[in-house]
Amino acid sequence: MRKILVFNNLSVDGQFSDAKGGLDWAHRDGKELAEYVQQKRGEVSTFLFGRVTFQMFASFWPTPAGKAASPYFAKVLNEGQKVVFSRTLRRTDWEHTVIQRSASPAALKKFKASAGGDCLVFGSGRLVRALAAQGLVDEYQLVINPVALGKGRPLFAPLAKRLDLGLIEAKAFKNGTVLLRYEPR
Amino acid sequence: MRKILVFNNLSVDGQFSDAKGGLDWAHRDGKELAEYVQQKRGEVSTFLFGRVTFQMFASFWPTPAGKAASPYFAKVLNEGQKVVFSRTLRRTDWEHTVIQRSASPAALKKFKASAGGDCLVFGSGRLVRALAAQGLVDEYQLVINPVALGKGRPLFAPLAKRLDLGLIEAKAFKNGTVLLRYEPR
Repeated sequence: MRKILVFNNLSVDGQFSDAKGGLDWAHRDGKELAEYVQQKRGEVSTFLFGRVTFQMFASFWPTPAGKAASPYFAKVLNEGQKVVFSRTLRRTDWEHTVIQRSASPAALKKFKASAGGDCLVFGSGRLVRALAAQGLVDEYQLVINPVALGKGRPLFAPLAKRLDLGLIEAKAFKNGTVLLRYEPR
Repeated sequence: MRKILVFNNLSVDGQFSDAKGGLDWAHRDGKELAEYVQQKRGEVSTFLFGRVTFQMFASFWPTPAGKAASPYFAKVLNEGQKVVFSRTLRRTDWEHTVIQRSASPAALKKFKASAGGDCLVFGSGRLVRALAAQGLVDEYQLVINPVALGKGRPLFAPLAKRLDLGLIEAKAFKNGTVLLRYEPR
């Protein structure tokens, strides 16, 4: 089975993006954090996305602005294998992308059992909730940012039933973020 | 000025109670956590509540069931000074309680400047947001529980504008909870 890791910046109130989809509240200055997370993450071969996050990323990371913003992330994302789960997306220009038509429980289980390396989900609240509901997530890596947004896009709402987690690690960084690593219970 | 501390158990997704007002998901088994929090809290003279949390507490802690559930908390809450902010509550049987008719910005500022010791807010999402909006909270002590509820009562929603915080401390406990202490920025 391929491992599926969920990685997200969260506000203290559990939003993964603000009401406009923005992420400017999430700390980007955390070299210490970024290096630590990469080390905990291990080898990831494939990035998984829902449509909304995918389209946001696809319109930014391949562009000169994206490459200027972070040469490292631009390279990793542009050159990495990507899977976007979407019933409506017809095509994409972002290289190394496969469009998966279904995110049904059966399709997600089949994907997890398919050949290939470990996977990382960024953003993509609906996909995270669908994977979580089927018990297909191996680890949640949540970076709690020192801000309450008060509204936005909650990563974990709605859930049909509550998701019990086990804490693996909590680690604070100089920029005020806290990495919380959980496994499902 | 009296210090105002906000203390709450939160789920990973920022709820302070589930959709039915329940708290059974919040870890109660944390002696280690409880002792640590009490020590960080310092001397608190007065408990502040919004009406909803107050009525829930007033119907439980003075009863034999409340005293059996936690003799310590029952004693602290029953014997402590309490202030409930409510326009509608006419009277209460819970001893040592003052009803404050207004939670307007001016009334909250006046309260903070009044004579008396430091204050602690439990639950009381609307009151927390009103105090936060006026910059009257000195410290947030948030205990992140290892569960995503998926729905419930969010502590920090809605906020008219985002609340920037500074991390004071992050500490993990054996029961899987993580205490995050923040001050407003």
